[in-house]
Formats: sequence, structure tokens, C-alpha cells
Amino acid sequence: MSISGCPLRLFFACMSLVVPAARVASAQGPALALIPQPVEVGTSPGEFVITPSVQLIAAADAVPEARKLADCLAPAMGLRLAVTEGTEPRDGAITLRIDESAGGLGDEGYRLEVTPKRIVITAARPAGLFHGIQTLRQLLPAAIFRKAAVADTRWAVPCVEIVDYPRFKWRGLMLETVYHFLPKSFILNSIDTMALHKFSVLHLHLTDDQGWRMEVNKYPKLTEIGGWRDETVIGHVDRGGVLKYDGRPHGGFYTQDDIREIVRYAADRYIDVVPEIEMPGHARAAIAAYPELGCYPERQLRPWTRWGICEDIFNPFDPTISFLQDVLVETMDLFPSRFIHIGGDEAIKDQWEAVPAIQARIRELGLKNEEELQSWFIRQMDDFLAKHGRRLVGWDEILEGGLAAGAVVMSWTGEEGGIAAARAGHDVVMTPRFWTYFDYYQGPRETEPMAFDEDLPLRKVYEYEPIPKALNEEQARRILGSQGQLWGEYMPDPRHVEYMAFPRAAALAEVVWSPRGPRDYDAFVARLRQHFQRLEALDVNFRRLDETEPE
Amino acid sequence: MSISGCPLRLFFACMSLVVPAARVASAQGPALALIPQPVEVGTSPGEFVITPSVQLIAAADAVPEARKLADCLAPAMGLRLAVTEGTEPRDGAITLRIDESAGGLGDEGYRLEVTPKRIVITAARPAGLFHGIQTLRQLLPAAIFRKAAVADTRWAVPCVEIVDYPRFKWRGLMLETVYHFLPKSFILNSIDTMALHKFSVLHLHLTDDQGWRMEVNKYPKLTEIGGWRDETVIGHVDRGGVLKYDGRPHGGFYTQDDIREIVRYAADRYIDVVPEIEMPGHARAAIAAYPELGCYPERQLRPWTRWGICEDIFNPFDPTISFLQDVLVETMDLFPSRFIHIGGDEAIKDQWEAVPAIQARIRELGLKNEEELQSWFIRQMDDFLAKHGRRLVGWDEILEGGLAAGAVVMSWTGEEGGIAAARAGHDVVMTPRFWTYFDYYQGPRETEPMAFDEDLPLRKVYEYEPIPKALNEEQARRILGSQGQLWGEYMPDPRHVEYMAFPRAAALAEVVWSPRGPRDYDAFVARLRQHFQRLEALDVNFRRLDETEPE
Repeated sequence: MSISGCPLRLFFACMSLVVPAARVASAQGPALALIPQPVEVGTSPGEFVITPSVQLIAAADAVPEARKLADCLAPAMGLRLAVTEGTEPRDGAITLRIDESAGGLGDEGYRLEVTPKRIVITAARPAGLFHGIQTLRQLLPAAIFRKAAVADTRWAVPCVEIVDYPRFKWRGLMLETVYHFLPKSFILNSIDTMALHKFSVLHLHLTDDQGWRMEVNKYPKLTEIGGWRDETVIGHVDRGGVLKYDGRPHGGFYTQDDIREIVRYAADRYIDVVPEIEMPGHARAAIAAYPELGCYPERQLRPWTRWGICEDIFNPFDPTISFLQDVLVETMDLFPSRFIHIGGDEAIKDQWEAVPAIQARIRELGLKNEEELQSWFIRQMDDFLAKHGRRLVGWDEILEGGLAAGAVVMSWTGEEGGIAAARAGHDVVMTPRFWTYFDYYQGPRETEPMAFDEDLPLRKVYEYEPIPKALNEEQARRILGSQGQLWGEYMPDPRHVEYMAFPRAAALAEVVWSPRGPRDYDAFVARLRQHFQRLEALDVNFRRLDETEPE
Repeated sequence: MSISGCPLRLFFACMSLVVPAARVASAQGPALALIPQPVEVGTSPGEFVITPSVQLIAAADAVPEARKLADCLAPAMGLRLAVTEGTEPRDGAITLRIDESAGGLGDEGYRLEVTPKRIVITAARPAGLFHGIQTLRQLLPAAIFRKAAVADTRWAVPCVEIVDYPRFKWRGLMLETVYHFLPKSFILNSIDTMALHKFSVLHLHLTDDQGWRMEVNKYPKLTEIGGWRDETVIGHVDRGGVLKYDGRPHGGFYTQDDIREIVRYAADRYIDVVPEIEMPGHARAAIAAYPELGCYPERQLRPWTRWGICEDIFNPFDPTISFLQDVLVETMDLFPSRFIHIGGDEAIKDQWEAVPAIQARIRELGLKNEEELQSWFIRQMDDFLAKHGRRLVGWDEILEGGLAAGAVVMSWTGEEGGIAAARAGHDVVMTPRFWTYFDYYQGPRETEPMAFDEDLPLRKVYEYEPIPKALNEEQARRILGSQGQLWGEYMPDPRHVEYMAFPRAAALAEVVWSPRGPRDYDAFVARLRQHFQRLEALDVNFRRLDETEPE
């Protein structure tokens, strides 16, 4: 069936947060024509009721998604709907169909038709079916998100016809696992929450000055020593005065089996996990484990215990380059993503300036200065990753000095890096901090828990436009999408990460999924209030809206 | 089939933590006779390999448990085994059978037979099948506990024959949700971990001076006001000096829907959830919400911000009794458990002594003193619960002054309360603090995080005997079992609760499941080291053993 050939349809491409469909129908005059008369299935006009006898019909290529639908409905319904192989939609059934000719849906889009008789989800690819299932879940009562059988609930889906697909491919969240270690179980839960919001990328920041979180078989001390710091600074570090520390060791890491589990769990939900192995700066934990990687091998450091930018930086000698490439080999083995993030930000060059052997290295390599050395350093990784069929991703500082064509830039300091990169023909993920850093305050400082000392209210996230005005149409195609960052200095536990993430991540989910255009914040907030019921059932610790938010 | 009629069998009743079955077989000479010769199913002698083609066979009454088996194997295996209705064990299948005549297994026991050809679990009741499934999970590689498909793993179960049933019915853990609010999702996860250890009771401490955690429809201020405290004391409160506070509001509560979800989730895993609504002491949060419940109605209190025993206590007037009985009505509506815990501990009587109207009340009721008033207070609840077909549970202070026959005593201050209660014909749950309080230090204070200022090492838990020596055989039958307590003053987040709970809860699980007799701590530790792999896969944040523990 061709979507474009269907005369009666509602066109929605903003369904990362679904509008209660009754609103959809009533808000769109002609849409009502789509709602057929009540028939024997269901007990009310204009809805399909999922009962125990409803079958899930799917052809072989759609069976895995049908099973996921059965899985996600089972706990709250208290029963598991049967999956039957088949291709023809049937009354009293939910049919999942992969139709490669379904035009205009792309790899991730779907068409969802709900009539009182049947539900049909059609997509060109399994990922589209999966996103359609997320919308279907949102159309059900919020109790569907509970993990045990809910009594006395009619599992009614209002009649709608939805054609829906994303604007951007890269719809990401970054979880930062170093400043405070994030348990594996929290990452798995977060992947579920991300899937519900139709995110496509989980960027895991795995190494930094304060800790190294990924087991590396060849270099076990990276986690044995680098995985643990002795204590942690208390409060903001940039307010002057004597710093106070908590005196409690902190750490943890993911085994390679843990990482395989995370990656597979995410892949099952069409989320690509992009690892970040930070270099050449933010290297203190690695240097603490292997002092020969640093600029002063005779110094025995410990992983850093405070926040900010540490001056310890990898040295640029061959053994260190090889060491890091070894680490990347294991990283690529664990993470099938085409994208491997190597950080590249905030590399203070003081140690490179001060060490004569490194100055000699700069001359030996025919470079002018430390900036060119950083560029050379990144290029070693860029070439290495490219040779292995992967694409390097880095924060916008990697632009300094030229990059391989396949490299991707994350523009965090502002839009400028992204603009320059797109103009230079690089793919770009827009992560400007004043729009996407979810570690900033989301409300009044008097009442909010301590956060990074900047502000990012919900409305600003919702009104963010990922394509900078300065780009022409061709350059704009270089913008892969955007993602929210959850730097965790001031998020001591997972509940706090959720508090900072939601609802801002829900706003960003709409920004990256929905079509360009003026955003109606009030309408978003109205939908968000519905959505909170889902987050409550899921026990996601979201921040409630201020009293002053629109109803 | 009658278990007792089977001539060849291994008798194990200590399988809350399963011994790797190869050890079982080799440690028991005759057991080897049970392991049939290798046949076509599986590729190695002496094991059954679960492959995608293995069917789960169950008669209608066992189908729900078969589905649970399919559910728990599915994530790591990456596929869901088919459940087929049937009664006859078949080669290449796992068969679950309910045989009400299966002698000696009781309501919770099971027989698990693994041969290279087939697996059969037999039980008299579904709960027994469920426990057999937990043992089967433990016999598989630890990777079975991961939540996404694990590649390149042979899901081999070593051949064993196990007949297993619990010593005690009440095998409990208490989660205390007040001092630090425990998110619903953590409680659900804890129920899963408890089920794996064959626990049968989750005691939820829901109200106290510092917070009220259960939504009560009739009295919404209990959670609106009583659910939140302004800040929390830092560190130990009994060390003298000026107390410091963290200045951060803390709180949260479970909606009635949340509680229904928890109760149902637990019931699906054969865990009974026993709620505790504390009275007449530990009442500050309720009195903060409704000052008329207290002894000084004119005082507007706030939920308490420090630890210890607060002197605010419910008044004994009729409206307060009615109020609390109203709360119990909603409690009984939410919790189907026969047991309703009303606390009763640590009720300081200073306010009862000081208030003339309460002194008059004592005289009006024909009582001698405040102790008799406490007893009268508890009896109002005892009678009320008994009238509703429930049994009151209370800490051992409820013994003072006489109790209804059905009341159950939790003996926490020591064994004496339990002994006295059993002799008086009351059922008893043994919870003596120096053996079951998991908030005590489990290792050296120099290296352990701050805890309650007492010690309870793992070995002491493992060697605990719930039946006091002072009891004769008939009195001993009054001991329903035991449970571990997780008072959370010094457990600021769920990960910390897990750290305090495990492995001590694993030790207690064996104490309450296994037959009486001398315990071999070294053998337990050896099995525990295997078990840690399971907890790691599950991401339970257990405490690792000290270097000095036996290998």
C-alpha cells in the first residue's frame, strides 16, 4: 500500500509525544471522517479495545516487532497477546506490516491506523514499526506503563490515522558516567525511556579526569586504578575559597559483558550507542593508571577529585598513540556504531608547552605549535577509525587544524562550530550548550537543587531550532540532528539525572522529531501534562512544571 | 507421582542459593547414579542444553508459571520458548507439573529433575513451581540474568535431582521507605531479587516521624504535608555536639495505584507485602499533617528532620482511633495480606503523662497508667483488624498489656519478646536486631560507609538460628520465620540499600529456607562467590567479601 496514494489521512510528524488522539480527531475537522462507525469490536464508538482475544498478526519480517508489542503490553494487561504469522489485516487484530514500498516513511516512519475493528501499523522498516508501537502505547491509558496487571482498565485506543516520521536521524541524549558512576540498570532503564520518546542515539561519555568506566582487557589498570577516585569535591568549585571534599571513595565501571548488554538492549530498541573515549585532554584517570601516558611519567597521579578542566594531558609519543588505538580497537569491538567519539574538547596545552621532549616532538612532526599537535593527535585517531570503517566524532575543538572528511563535529560551545563544520562539508550534531545542556538550572535557583551555574528553562529547549539560520539548504543537510547533555557533576544519583533530564528531554525529543516550524509551547505543555502520567507510571523522576507554566 | 515413592533422589532443602550442580553431583557419591548417559539432547554428557527448539510443557494450572519461566529466560536467550499445554514430560522439553499428591513438598516445595533428555519440575502448588524455576535459573550460566541477548552462550543445565522446600513460611525483608524515600522502581527490582532468593514476605515500613509514604484518599494531607520534610540531619545524631542539617527538602510517596502495582508484582512472585502503619509513636509526620491527632493540637509541627525517637505521639481520643482505623481500612483495601503491621515500638509516653485530658482519658477507660493506655490503643487496632479478618503484627513492645490471640509479634529488641510471645501462644517473627538488622556495620568501620552504630557481620547472619533454644517443640511451632531489616537513616539512595542488604540477605535466605543444623560458613562463602556473578549480571550493588573471608 502506498501511503501517498491514500486519500483520507491525517498527517502528523510530531508524535514523539502523542496528543491524546481524541484531541487529534476533534482538533482536525476532516479527521473525524476517518473514524468509522462503531462495530462489534470494542464497546464504544471511535475506539479499539485491546482484549485478551486480540491477536497480533505479523509476517515473518515483522514478528520480532510484534513480540516487542506483546512484551510491552503484557505486564499491565496481565496477559500476553498471541503473535500469529500472517500478512492480511484482520478484524479484531493488531497487524504489523513491513511494506518496503511505503513511500515517504523513510527508515523510521510508520503509519498507524486505528479503527474500531482493527489496528494496522505499516512501515518500510522494522524501526518504523517500533516507533509506531511507541505511539500506540501512548494512545493507551497511562496505566499501560505499569509493571504488574492493572485491574478494571479498558485498554482502549482512540481511532486515529497517523503518518509519522522523524525530521532528524540523530536524536540523542548523552549520559555522562564519570563524574558520578551510573549503574548499568539505570542505563538500561534510560534506554527504555528514550525509546518511548523515539530517541535514536545514546552517547555514553565513558572516560574523563575523574574516572575511567569501560573495562579494557589489554589495559586492566584503566578500571582497576582509573575507575576509582579517593573522594569528591563538595559544591561548586568556581566560587573561590578553600574546596571541601567528602572523604568517600567513588567509582565503578562497566565490564565488557555489561557493555555488550547495554549495546544489545539499545539495538533492540533502535538506539545506537556511541561511546566517547576522551583525548588528548580529560585524561587524568588514564594517566593515573598508566603514568607513561602522561607528560610527566615520573609523577604518580590519582584520578581527579574535583570538577573543571584538569591540565593532565596525554603525551603525543608513539606508544601513547598505539595505546589509545588499542583502546579504540576494543571500543570498536564492543560498540558496533559507525560513530566513535574521541572527545577532543578542553585540552589545555600547558604541559605540552612545558616539556622539552614534547616540544622536540612538535618539531620532529614538522608542526608549528601545540594547536597543530592537537590536530595531529586527533588525525591519528581519525585515520585509524576511518581505516576501520568508522567515523570519528568530536566536540567542536577538533575543528582546529583540519579533519578527515568523514569526521562528525558536535557543536557545543555555540552554533559557530557547527556552522563552520557544515560549511567545510562535515556532518554536524548540534549540541550548543545554552540549548542542550541539561545540567543547567531548569528553574529558580532558590528552589532548585544545586546545578551547573547556567540556566536552561524548558521553553528554551522546546523552541530550539537545530539548523542554524546561517546555513544554506545544502549546508543544512549536514546537520544530523541534536542531543541533550547530562553532565553529572551535580547529579549524585540516577534519580537526580532523571530530574534534570525530564521534561527537557521530552521537549528535545519533539524538536528533533517534528517538522520545522513555529512551536506552540502552550500546546506542548498541555500534552506534557498528559505525558507526566506516563512518566509517573514508569517512575521516571521528572521535574514538575512551575506554577506559572501555561495550562 | 509421589516424591516419597521415588527410590533415587537427592534430598536438598538448602537451595535458596543453589550449589553449582556439578558440585552437588560429585559431592554426593550415589547422586551420580542419577545422571543418565548422554543422549541426543544437549551436546555434553550430564547436562541439558536449552536451545530455541525446547518447548515448555504445562497443564492449564501450570501455564502461568511456564510463562514466567519463558519470560525470565527470554531476555538473555534472545528468544521466548513456546509454551504448550500438556501433562506428559517429553524429551527435549521442560515440563512443569502440579501434582497435589506430591508428598512432602508442602505449598512451596518442588522437585527438579534434570537429565540430558528433559527437565521436569513438579510441585503441589504453583508457588513450588515458581521456586523450582528460581533454582533452574541459578543452575544456568550467570549470564541468564542479563537483560539483552547474550551471544555465544550454551544454556546448559547440569543434571541434578533436587527435592527442596522451605523450613519457614515467613522469609522476609523489611524495606523502610521513610528515612529516605525508596522509588517504586527500586521496590519492584528488589522484589525480583527477593524472589531469586526465595523470600516470601516484603514488609514495607510506610510511616514514621520523618514522613508518610502511603496515599490515603480520605486524608490527603498525610502525603501532601506528611510526605515531605524540610531537610535532613547529617551524620550520627547520638555523638553530642550541634546537629548539622543538609538544607534540602526530602520526600515522596506511593500513590494507591503504585501500591496496587507493587502488591500485584510481588504476588506474581509469591511474595506477600505486609504494610506497616506505625502507631501510637513514630507519629510525627501524621500529626504534622493533622495536628488534631497529636497531644498538643494547637502546635503546628513539621515532619521530623532528625533520627532517633521523637516524643510526638497520637492522642488516645475517639476521633484519632477512628482516623487510624479509616487509614487501616484503606490499607486493607490496598494490601490483601492477612498481616497488617501497626508498629507499636518506641512509643515515648511523656506527652501522655503531661497532658491532663489524656490523664483523664486513662481514668475514664479504667486504666492504671500510660503503659496500659498503649496496650488499650493497640487493642483497638487488634480488634478492628481481627473483625476484618486480618491479623495484627507489631514490634515486641505490643506484648506489654495483653494481645488478641491472632496477633503476631516481631521480636526485635532481642529474643526475649519472641520467647514470651511464643509461650503465650502468639505467632512470632524473629527479628532480633543483633542478627537481622542490616543497617548495622558489616565490616570494619574505617572502610565502611557510615552505618547505624552497631555491628552485624555476614557470618553472624549465616549462623543465626531463628528458633530460640528456650522454646519447647510446641512453642517452637509459633516461630513463623525471620526477616532482615533495612532501616535507612544512613542509606541515602537505593544503591546503598542494596549494599547493606547483600550478601547478608542471601545468608538470611538460607537460614530461613534450609533445614536446621550446623551451618558450614566456608561452604556458604564458596557458593556465595558463584552467586556474586548472578548479582553482578543483575546489577545488584552487593558488598564484596573482605580479603580475610574463606575461599
